[in-house]
Amino acid sequence: MSLIEDLKWRYATKKYDPTKKVSQENIDKIVEAARLAPTSSGLQQFRVLVVSNQEIKEKLAPSSLNPEVMVDCSHVLVFAAWDRYSAERIDSIYDRITDERGLPQGRFSSYTDKIKSLYLNQSAEENFVHTARQSYIAFAMAIAQAAELRIDSTPAEGFNNELVDELLDLKSLGLKSVTLLYLGYRDENDWLAPMKKVRNPTEDFVIEVK
Amino acid sequence: MSLIEDLKWRYATKKYDPTKKVSQENIDKIVEAARLAPTSSGLQQFRVLVVSNQEIKEKLAPSSLNPEVMVDCSHVLVFAAWDRYSAERIDSIYDRITDERGLPQGRFSSYTDKIKSLYLNQSAEENFVHTARQSYIAFAMAIAQAAELRIDSTPAEGFNNELVDELLDLKSLGLKSVTLLYLGYRDENDWLAPMKKVRNPTEDFVIEVK
Repeated sequence: MSLIEDLKWRYATKKYDPTKKVSQENIDKIVEAARLAPTSSGLQQFRVLVVSNQEIKEKLAPSSLNPEVMVDCSHVLVFAAWDRYSAERIDSIYDRITDERGLPQGRFSSYTDKIKSLYLNQSAEENFVHTARQSYIAFAMAIAQAAELRIDSTPAEGFNNELVDELLDLKSLGLKSVTLLYLGYRDENDWLAPMKKVRNPTEDFVIEVK
Repeated sequence: MSLIEDLKWRYATKKYDPTKKVSQENIDKIVEAARLAPTSSGLQQFRVLVVSNQEIKEKLAPSSLNPEVMVDCSHVLVFAAWDRYSAERIDSIYDRITDERGLPQGRFSSYTDKIKSLYLNQSAEENFVHTARQSYIAFAMAIAQAAELRIDSTPAEGFNNELVDELLDLKSLGLKSVTLLYLGYRDENDWLAPMKKVRNPTEDFVIEVK
């Protein structure tokens, strides 16, 4: 199979079969694709929370525009980005990079000085615009990986972020929720399943600069 | 092959072989993966510009933090998002969706009224935060598709957006540049190619909520 076939197969599932659960092995693969996603300066400015507990899903459900989708799906992934940059966060990543590559400590210090002077002079809000964007790359990789495994998913942005942050105590982790990804197996009566996938035609979507 | 293997294979290429060009067939596949990416409300709030012309790449190069990477690569994709939402943009998408699905016109009007009242009451800056995020999902799909085809790529955010917007006349299209994706084939002397890919360990990256 190919990514294009996987993307044609998938759709934003609107009704899950609550009796079907995604295996831990497959959850691990979906999270691994997110972990391997590229990010700006390699900083991986986000974390993925994996919610499998039914009670917690039910507590989170009122935050969602489609509470029943959250309740019936198998797992909810929460993509949560750094609330802001810090020198410690940046150094910790680059300490690991130099270490794992067997390079001398400080090998990237002129680079990390540059990114620190950029981000640490911004507001927390400006930082979060950037960290949240990075989490979308991983979000997309998780969507693609689920499709490759023929696991249904629903990407969700429209939810009450404050409620999710509070219920999962994200503030104490220096994180803020960005997106949710519901995972599971479609109910055979999902109204959206038989509908045609509609996209802008290629000739409108692409602009050739020749 | 699998997405995980593809993501392990890829890296942010720092030096391209300028003699090797990506075929049109493969460019089409990369753009198709971006076109199939899911987006908020299915609005596809961005376009992809495909720059193959060497003179234009050279004009764009000073906008980049790594001008020689842009000059030597085969193609540059520019992901450019809607500068703001408008009723016309939203209606045009939903007119196509109802049409292609054979549904009565207006089938989604209560939904489009809701998203219009949300977005049209925001500033252009707030709109762009949201439209730019959507383009990252497609950006990620393009990165994954290039890797599946064993085409090297360099995702780039750090560039002079104003210069790119001006050179490509994006304002007249109601677009603003968000990210660049350089495509091509690595030079055998790229210093980064042999380096280990470093990511946060899974136990730090994932937070299990059980």
